[in-house]
Amino acid sequence: MSKIKNVAVVGGTHGNEFSGIYLLKKWQSTPQSLARESFSVETVFANPKAFDENKRYVDHDLNRQFGLHDLTNFELASYEQSRAKALNEQIGPKGNAKSDFIIDLHNTTSNMGPSLILLQSDQFNRQLGAYVKEKMPDAVVVFEDHTSVDDHLFVCSIAKQGVIIEVGPQPQSVIRQDVLDWMEDMTGHILDFVHLYNTNEIPVLADSYDAYRYEETLKLPVDEQGERIGMVHKSVQDNDFEPLNPGDPIFTLFDGTEIFWEGDYVAYPHFINEAAYYDNNLAMSLGKKIVVSTK
Amino acid sequence: MSKIKNVAVVGGTHGNEFSGIYLLKKWQSTPQSLARESFSVETVFANPKAFDENKRYVDHDLNRQFGLHDLTNFELASYEQSRAKALNEQIGPKGNAKSDFIIDLHNTTSNMGPSLILLQSDQFNRQLGAYVKEKMPDAVVVFEDHTSVDDHLFVCSIAKQGVIIEVGPQPQSVIRQDVLDWMEDMTGHILDFVHLYNTNEIPVLADSYDAYRYEETLKLPVDEQGERIGMVHKSVQDNDFEPLNPGDPIFTLFDGTEIFWEGDYVAYPHFINEAAYYDNNLAMSLGKKIVVSTK
Repeated sequence: MSKIKNVAVVGGTHGNEFSGIYLLKKWQSTPQSLARESFSVETVFANPKAFDENKRYVDHDLNRQFGLHDLTNFELASYEQSRAKALNEQIGPKGNAKSDFIIDLHNTTSNMGPSLILLQSDQFNRQLGAYVKEKMPDAVVVFEDHTSVDDHLFVCSIAKQGVIIEVGPQPQSVIRQDVLDWMEDMTGHILDFVHLYNTNEIPVLADSYDAYRYEETLKLPVDEQGERIGMVHKSVQDNDFEPLNPGDPIFTLFDGTEIFWEGDYVAYPHFINEAAYYDNNLAMSLGKKIVVSTK
Repeated sequence: MSKIKNVAVVGGTHGNEFSGIYLLKKWQSTPQSLARESFSVETVFANPKAFDENKRYVDHDLNRQFGLHDLTNFELASYEQSRAKALNEQIGPKGNAKSDFIIDLHNTTSNMGPSLILLQSDQFNRQLGAYVKEKMPDAVVVFEDHTSVDDHLFVCSIAKQGVIIEVGPQPQSVIRQDVLDWMEDMTGHILDFVHLYNTNEIPVLADSYDAYRYEETLKLPVDEQGERIGMVHKSVQDNDFEPLNPGDPIFTLFDGTEIFWEGDYVAYPHFINEAAYYDNNLAMSLGKKIVVSTK
């Protein structure tokens, strides 16, 4: 992998996730806090209209609009479908992008703490995860490498290398200082790592570390009409990245009935009860715990 | 005060506060859980359109539309202004209402736990607060009796007696089981109390208890253009109903500057960083601690 010359830091991909949006404003007045010697950095406010309307999105979820075919399908003409094409022109195009590396800043209402979502498990990403965890002991690393970068639909999939910083818990349309501080710290550590990578100065890292790999997404219980009939069990709520064993309670129906996890593996739920996923009745993502080598 | 014959339990006054909305659905299939011998109960889904649109409100905050003059001003014709008139017809009219007692169910993104907001400090309300606190040790009682019921703009001000159940923390558009359970429990205890009141069977209560009285509302720091330049200090976040002493940090500006509480009293913040109040740049409500007599 060659050196990283151009980095884009993207905020406001979802208009009601405020940490990234307010950090962009802050960094505009202190650009030196993002600057590193070995590469240039630009900041990108991805969905200003959704922010103005205090919504996740206006027409469609912007962070699902970066499929290769969709980006060249000009019949897809909603606000976010158009905005995706504009962003693809600004920092892309996907597959041959001006930006070598994209950091996309997100909040979740789930209790995920400072999480780093990586789309690939090459040595660069594996070492990046180790470096961030060494600098931020509370940080969690999640690999969403179940599909190729080309096949991902995220804004950060425009570039050859892209990551998501996902920090919570934070209600939509709120700024929590702890969450803002986590996001700012993690962004700084990632930029530091990129600089160390560019200058061949990556320090000695632990041989391996614990992380999670995305496995599947669970839906909330619904009836035959698709109406929600239950909720996340209180023993699961807020326990993002805690083990869920087969047979553990996972949902409570409104009539009091408990539903149990019937999978055949120890799952590590995250994005538990994420507000934005209610559109699709999604309850949580499940991951498996993995040990990641830095070699 | 005469006996209470008709009670209205209102949910969904704000369309993205889900606990009350899903409890109404539940109670429709188990009406016996609300029924008490000495009065009749009806449930009212106040703002179904806002729920359909997954928003707090469509045009205006419904829970600010119940001023006496506004209810008879037919030039006020937005969705919620019209809905308020319809509700005033259904369970009012304000000042001479069919409902003797209204319980309005709300969620907050703030860490307020199960809170009971009372609009009056007559013996009925003072004893109701004591009863709920004895049944639910985690419950907090807040008096918003700084203005008369007639002058309040809340849906529950239609009736001679009305209270708000306010439970959090819960992000907008999410159902947390702990929050749902608290709301259901508190509703049940209030209905029990009304029945005991009607039948002259109120048990012996503590002579007095601690509660809070609303004092004022603080705004987030803004610049001359009205743009937000700071956030709630991390030492205040989540500490609803904990004392804030003069000189304590209260806000952090995005440039790192700390702002301190300059009031001349020990304040008890609540509705800290409530998402819905961001429209007006409101940061929190402040209360004073009071000792309430049940005599």
